Amino acid sequence: MALPMRNNLKHFPRFIQKLNSPKRLLCVGLRPENKEAPRSGRVFSGIQPTGVPHLGNYLGALENWVSLQHQYPSVLYSIVDLHSITQPQDPTQLKSNILDMAASLLACGINPEKAILFQQSQVSEHAELSWILGCLTSMPRLRHLPQWKMKSKVKNEGSVGLYTYPVLQAADILLYKSTHVPVGEDQVQHLELAQDLARIFNNRYGELFPEPCALLSSTQKVKSLRDPSAKMSKSDPQTMATVSVTDTPDDIALKIRRAVTDFTSEVTFDPETRPGVSNLVNIHAAVAMISVQEAVSQARGLDTGAYKKLVSDAVIQRLTPIREEIERLRSDRAHLERVLAQGTCRARELAAPVLAEVRQRVGFC
Amino acid sequence: MALPMRNNLKHFPRFIQKLNSPKRLLCVGLRPENKEAPRSGRVFSGIQPTGVPHLGNYLGALENWVSLQHQYPSVLYSIVDLHSITQPQDPTQLKSNILDMAASLLACGINPEKAILFQQSQVSEHAELSWILGCLTSMPRLRHLPQWKMKSKVKNEGSVGLYTYPVLQAADILLYKSTHVPVGEDQVQHLELAQDLARIFNNRYGELFPEPCALLSSTQKVKSLRDPSAKMSKSDPQTMATVSVTDTPDDIALKIRRAVTDFTSEVTFDPETRPGVSNLVNIHAAVAMISVQEAVSQARGLDTGAYKKLVSDAVIQRLTPIREEIERLRSDRAHLERVLAQGTCRARELAAPVLAEVRQRVGFC
Repeated sequence: MALPMRNNLKHFPRFIQKLNSPKRLLCVGLRPENKEAPRSGRVFSGIQPTGVPHLGNYLGALENWVSLQHQYPSVLYSIVDLHSITQPQDPTQLKSNILDMAASLLACGINPEKAILFQQSQVSEHAELSWILGCLTSMPRLRHLPQWKMKSKVKNEGSVGLYTYPVLQAADILLYKSTHVPVGEDQVQHLELAQDLARIFNNRYGELFPEPCALLSSTQKVKSLRDPSAKMSKSDPQTMATVSVTDTPDDIALKIRRAVTDFTSEVTFDPETRPGVSNLVNIHAAVAMISVQEAVSQARGLDTGAYKKLVSDAVIQRLTPIREEIERLRSDRAHLERVLAQGTCRARELAAPVLAEVRQRVGFC
Repeated sequence: MALPMRNNLKHFPRFIQKLNSPKRLLCVGLRPENKEAPRSGRVFSGIQPTGVPHLGNYLGALENWVSLQHQYPSVLYSIVDLHSITQPQDPTQLKSNILDMAASLLACGINPEKAILFQQSQVSEHAELSWILGCLTSMPRLRHLPQWKMKSKVKNEGSVGLYTYPVLQAADILLYKSTHVPVGEDQVQHLELAQDLARIFNNRYGELFPEPCALLSSTQKVKSLRDPSAKMSKSDPQTMATVSVTDTPDDIALKIRRAVTDFTSEVTFDPETRPGVSNLVNIHAAVAMISVQEAVSQARGLDTGAYKKLVSDAVIQRLTPIREEIERLRSDRAHLERVLAQGTCRARELAAPVLAEVRQRVGFC
């Protein structure tokens, strides 16, 4: 059973992005890179501690995170708990969600030997740099950014933390002199703020920060199983809409069996006119690591009912080892805390000299 | 000669407040305390690193700071450099101003054995707690506070740092579980935010912070020597308007000789109708540590010209040992840095367990 989770991508866009296979990474401002060529630079990304991720998170961001750790010499992944408190959180649940997210990232294939996996709030330099960058950011600059505009729709007013959230994101990135940031389209404007702040700081205090570039995905997102016009989301009130990576095989089979399709029994791929079936094809292709064409060809001769069985078998096959590994890791809290503590140490080793340099440039010492 | 300074109290109200002798401390929400009775609690105040203070700062805030360190068992005074960068600063000048302010505070009588004197930016917990408190502060709550309203008059828009400045002030205070904060009237609304945030945090996460109360002065402020309707200010473009505590005796004599008075030669105290002469009487009483009545009685038989000589002699007598001590301390940069480093250690010893408790309550660990 999935843990109760409070993430709402609509209101709280995060670094996390959705990518389906086959992946296409675009480095904004650069030519598309050769996927096989060794890359240089440092990748930073963050994910809110929402507990166990869902299938959309996994096939989108996390699978990509796993692949990036083999492509770049330096990679940092942060569980961004300072961002999570821009919305009310139950403290006990938050602590548990942080550990569940750590377990999930490890189970999905994040290797703490290759990527620095750490908890944002344990590295004090994030908040410190955020204050300094906030003094270089004008108030109107933040007014039209997605996190505030979307939240405003709901309530018209939010907390100071919600408003200044993109400044902390910029600090997260610049603190490590990151060069590449995997982002979803909804996060491009936030990354632009980080780029602007790198430029503003460099102009005022001398060259220090590289301008981080976006690793943008152009692939389709995994959709809700109940409403294929919406993204799959943890906060979806319909429990049948979202597959958690810890769902049991029975849960997965039931949810996919109940997935909204249409009245045509043949399986084709046409997201515009047949979004429900096409979402299943997308999921199938992604979990089986085949192309969409290959998935459609495997469905030849099957009606949607039979195809759903094929898709759920493929999902179960892909998620079962992850679920089992999460269960194993969850039972060893001390190990998870040790992994995060080691990540914190390594992150601090990178962050401390950068912040020391910032302090010196600003005139604090 | 006074160092170039960029502070502008009109636009950047600070913790610093103006108090003239005789002092009257009011603890808001409490009965006026018996000045002689031993007090309990912890005092916190901050001053921006604007270099060497002026006579108004000294007679207002600093003289009071010196007295508070003998009245309370625990006292912290912070050079709030994180606040100073809410306005553009030249880094070299800022660094030099931090050390000049440290030298000035010591020369004015702050005893680092009694009061913890430290530089805000060196204690990372300030920025960290500020982020957490910002997530408990609504955006409209800050819109009408003095720092923003006043700055808005000038430019209509400022930096995120300027807008969120009162949240950092609240963090400065609460981080040490401070109980008493000496403030000027222009800072009362900012202290109310700190009180609100203490309540909000306690309600949400359980009792932790005492609600800090204001030590409010009700005395008159030292006025500009060129325009007695305005406060004495470092940023006054008229160099004759402001006496720096490092002005030479000749400078002081010249400035007071040129002080704006009126066409009546007799010396009386009537701030409404005779603001110029009354300002001199106030300054005289404060530096000579006598009452206003006593100052007026000493002026009997003198015209304002002769009285100005009496006042400047009294100011020179009071400021000379301070000027000499500042000069001595300025020549020993290593000593100043050592004093601040020791202050930082002692501040962190108090701040770290409070922030650790906050983190735990919020659910970060």
